[in-house]
Amino acid sequence: MGFSFANDVATPLLDQVHVPDDLKSMDHAALCRLAQELRGETLRVVSETGGHLGSSLGVIELTVAIHASFSAPRDTIIWDVSHQCYPHKILTGRRDRMRSLRKKDGLSGFTRRGESPFDPFGAAHSSTSISAGLGFATARDLKGQDGHVVCIIGDGAMSAGMAFEAMNNAGASGRPLIVILNDNDMSISASTGALNRHLSDVRRNTGTNAGNVFENFGFDYRGPVDGHDLDVLIPLLAELRDEKDGPILLHVVTRKGAGYAPAEAAEDKYHGVNPFDVTTGKQNKTEAKAPSYTRVFADALIAEAEKDDRIVAITAAMAAGTGVDRFGAAFPDRTFDVGIAEQHAVTFAAGLAAAGMKPFCAIYSTFLQRAYDQIVHDVALQQLPVRFAIDRAGLVGSDGPTHAGAFDILYLANLPGFTVMAASDEAELMHMVATAAAHDHGPIAFRYPRGEGTGVPLPIRGDVLPIGRGRIIEQGGQIALLSFGTRLADCLKARRLLALEGISVTVADARFAKPLDTALLAELVDNHSMLVTIEEGATGGFGALVLHHLANRGMLDGRCAVRTLTLPDTFIAQASPEDMYEEAKLTARHIAAAARNGLTVARPNADIRRSGRAGQQELPARLHRAEDR
Amino acid sequence: MGFSFANDVATPLLDQVHVPDDLKSMDHAALCRLAQELRGETLRVVSETGGHLGSSLGVIELTVAIHASFSAPRDTIIWDVSHQCYPHKILTGRRDRMRSLRKKDGLSGFTRRGESPFDPFGAAHSSTSISAGLGFATARDLKGQDGHVVCIIGDGAMSAGMAFEAMNNAGASGRPLIVILNDNDMSISASTGALNRHLSDVRRNTGTNAGNVFENFGFDYRGPVDGHDLDVLIPLLAELRDEKDGPILLHVVTRKGAGYAPAEAAEDKYHGVNPFDVTTGKQNKTEAKAPSYTRVFADALIAEAEKDDRIVAITAAMAAGTGVDRFGAAFPDRTFDVGIAEQHAVTFAAGLAAAGMKPFCAIYSTFLQRAYDQIVHDVALQQLPVRFAIDRAGLVGSDGPTHAGAFDILYLANLPGFTVMAASDEAELMHMVATAAAHDHGPIAFRYPRGEGTGVPLPIRGDVLPIGRGRIIEQGGQIALLSFGTRLADCLKARRLLALEGISVTVADARFAKPLDTALLAELVDNHSMLVTIEEGATGGFGALVLHHLANRGMLDGRCAVRTLTLPDTFIAQASPEDMYEEAKLTARHIAAAARNGLTVARPNADIRRSGRAGQQELPARLHRAEDR
Repeated sequence: MGFSFANDVATPLLDQVHVPDDLKSMDHAALCRLAQELRGETLRVVSETGGHLGSSLGVIELTVAIHASFSAPRDTIIWDVSHQCYPHKILTGRRDRMRSLRKKDGLSGFTRRGESPFDPFGAAHSSTSISAGLGFATARDLKGQDGHVVCIIGDGAMSAGMAFEAMNNAGASGRPLIVILNDNDMSISASTGALNRHLSDVRRNTGTNAGNVFENFGFDYRGPVDGHDLDVLIPLLAELRDEKDGPILLHVVTRKGAGYAPAEAAEDKYHGVNPFDVTTGKQNKTEAKAPSYTRVFADALIAEAEKDDRIVAITAAMAAGTGVDRFGAAFPDRTFDVGIAEQHAVTFAAGLAAAGMKPFCAIYSTFLQRAYDQIVHDVALQQLPVRFAIDRAGLVGSDGPTHAGAFDILYLANLPGFTVMAASDEAELMHMVATAAAHDHGPIAFRYPRGEGTGVPLPIRGDVLPIGRGRIIEQGGQIALLSFGTRLADCLKARRLLALEGISVTVADARFAKPLDTALLAELVDNHSMLVTIEEGATGGFGALVLHHLANRGMLDGRCAVRTLTLPDTFIAQASPEDMYEEAKLTARHIAAAARNGLTVARPNADIRRSGRAGQQELPARLHRAEDR
Repeated sequence: MGFSFANDVATPLLDQVHVPDDLKSMDHAALCRLAQELRGETLRVVSETGGHLGSSLGVIELTVAIHASFSAPRDTIIWDVSHQCYPHKILTGRRDRMRSLRKKDGLSGFTRRGESPFDPFGAAHSSTSISAGLGFATARDLKGQDGHVVCIIGDGAMSAGMAFEAMNNAGASGRPLIVILNDNDMSISASTGALNRHLSDVRRNTGTNAGNVFENFGFDYRGPVDGHDLDVLIPLLAELRDEKDGPILLHVVTRKGAGYAPAEAAEDKYHGVNPFDVTTGKQNKTEAKAPSYTRVFADALIAEAEKDDRIVAITAAMAAGTGVDRFGAAFPDRTFDVGIAEQHAVTFAAGLAAAGMKPFCAIYSTFLQRAYDQIVHDVALQQLPVRFAIDRAGLVGSDGPTHAGAFDILYLANLPGFTVMAASDEAELMHMVATAAAHDHGPIAFRYPRGEGTGVPLPIRGDVLPIGRGRIIEQGGQIALLSFGTRLADCLKARRLLALEGISVTVADARFAKPLDTALLAELVDNHSMLVTIEEGATGGFGALVLHHLANRGMLDGRCAVRTLTLPDTFIAQASPEDMYEEAKLTARHIAAAARNGLTVARPNADIRRSGRAGQQELPARLHRAEDR
């Protein structure tokens, strides 16, 4: 069932490859052997590190053929999405660092400009390669330079609108540009949509491809060819390399997970894997201590949908990642996988809502960015009750900064009429699903992180929360920690740390970034010397709205200092989520420090104001101050 | 040259149309006459109100045919972009209000759900109709209801990626849905791209359309037909109405501006017009007192480009609107109109920047929303020096809330590594163009409003500004007004108003929302009792970043109160820009009031803190306080 490594008695050819030009001196037989070694090396690496296996295995021969035929980095090779770039990294001088893949301070799991001159354009979100490639090709032509531009894009990625925008422009440009369509009949989920059917037709009718969509877009279409056959690929790429007449689309058919039986057999072709045993294909899975947020969301939505047949669920090619696959098993007719098409997903949902349905758009925070205009123009402006289930909020770990859910709070909570919630644990998530289902007079969003919940007991069904009301978790005196999201657990830890120093802390869960709980804010500001907001998002979001409110109500009068803890103003490189939050300075220790430092910094300033000189002063507990007035 | 109105002796048929069902009783000859009357009425209205004329004239017959054949509002009619909806509005009970078009409290220039049950889905940005229509069709099918869904989309709008995402899903859905492609070979600019060429081929080869792109996407293709010939349209729509087998695409060929010679002759077919003389076609243009910001931008960019051949300009189908047409006349090879394809525009620019060029993306604030993910993922994450020239920042007038540039500050200035500027006048805009051209180590954006500049003298060429440095315009004592953008003029007026009350005001121009001028902020906070930030944008942007900074440096200690004036948390309906800013409470009077009220509100609170009781206190001028410490 497993994989036969190439004969290791001879010196591995891979040892001779330091730059892709080293492939140029290899004959055809050697390149075939190299491909086999590369598959073995990729397997070995990913079996130890985990990562995106299936897509990398699918492009082993293609990677060898490209680097044997073109001359990177003089030729520009752009991998779309780039989770299939592991063999490319191995052949471009990074083989010795592959065990650091997706780890802190290690190689990125994607192409990254800062990592290597062989990565001219980074990626991770899909469907950007043709646009970027046309930019490189245009710059080349304007500068009167030479060099090929080769974009490798999957059939799933081709279904996103931006790929069509790029084809529309590249096709009309007449500029030499080679787009290799890596057609494996999958995105992460199985591919969907009319284009997919069209590609099936094209694959079947190898002789008569006149009129296929790529030709309609002005590309010189070649193919389809077997993407695992170097006997075909290498002469074909050599041929394309020597043509310079305009945009060419080469249609290559591959199998995701190719050459590794356990991957080929798996439903998702081992798209993303934990470390695993190469012989058996068995992945190391650590026992979950609590259900994942994704799972809790899916089950809560199913529970709501059982009682309300207006509820429908929408995913953009992430059925498993968002839990919409579970919903789909329960309600196949009420489940829509639109492919990699977030823009359509949101406006489709807006249409459903306008027609009286209750659509739940389950999209990762980072991918929802792609539908921002649709959120503003089709949902918010029309006040349509589209529900946004925003998974992967905050920092996500080994996928790194391209996948961080950093901006959704700010890009949603500043829109008029939007309701924006964040779950502090998985029971809260259930309440927010119920709240969103019940909220039928405007858009509403709730965000939750990747990974396991906290293990809190779960209700049978979520409660409908009062809109715009937070809750006090622990009552204290001097400092108020107001958390929006799952940093609540760290706030409670910070409270215990500060208690050891004799500092009394209130911890509250805001639940809503919009509308703000202004009564809770007034209570916290009136009764504490320090208010700290905490969120797993960039500036401009929850903390900013708190500050705007307090400033414009004249509540920033110095009696209660305010600090806003957000993600820092940098993109945080991959690491474990814990390490990333450490770097973001959003752990219990950092929260405690910010509160403590804020107190000691704030007071001297206040004293200047009061007495005209610097000095320290005892901090009064202000819990009952409101009553004193 | 002008237009012959239908014989007005007979009672106009239009007088008999109150709802579209009134068309059902008309015979063919009457419908033809109605169309002619409708063209006359549309012309008369727009000659008085101004607005989108050419696109409405292009769909006169189509509108009559649709309403004669389908039964709105039971059937769902969705106009893409919807600037062509004037004849639809006239036929759907709004004829008597057409003179209020695009005016304060009047009819919207677009379809709007709140305005009429005949507007099931509002629009203004392009390419949303098929997604929304598929939502309606899906809801219809899930509910087991009846009714047609008809989407009318232009060939320009069809070039945007989201239209393809929608086609990909609609084509595979098998659901009955009628998409009418209104092919007039134009967007606002002339159409570009491979799809446009393909449509030309399809138009020429009326007999043999096998393999056209719509069929590849699973649509039953019909056409092309003459969209001005009711003899063809009415029986054809009746035929489509009675088929219920799946998605149909009807290809209708129209002429923008049809039936009105001055419009047909004009380059842009009278896309958007001022009030005009129907007989001559001459538009009323008020003499400009100063060059428009758009014009100043274009000329400044040309000046920079003459000295730096790495500068290129990109527009997304708004060549004239952005001034990129002027740039294109000077540098045709360095100018790229990508069509309605903002996503591609931004990543194409990122590719150009990665290859060493200096791309300027000139895109309206509201349309740039469509490329938010590309800005985050392709530009900001890679710190590529793409320059964003953001036209139509702030409130734009008669196009209303769909076109307001309200969110760009917040969605850009919270991104790591971005530099975000706003011009306070047209000379400043020149400096910012020069600054962006010189800034080669990360993304940079500058925003400026629609309309005329202030008339300040213009330098020969802009200066490169120091990054992250604002400037004090007028020095005062008690209150500091810190403006980001063109409200600066109103701040100076507010200063004069407050001076009459004996209140001394400093006025500063922030120039940068990011990086903030922290030294300027410290100076303002140290030396004033009140700091007011003013911006033509929503919360979460400039003022929020000021508050974050001050809060986390312990500078909100009550000595200097802070107020943030932003666009309010509502979508502001169309009116003149002046009236819209009045409603937004961002005029000189409002700025003065906010500052004055802030002062009087802030002090009692501060006094409570100081003395434990409420009370008022004289406001000290704090200009030299920093020196006292």
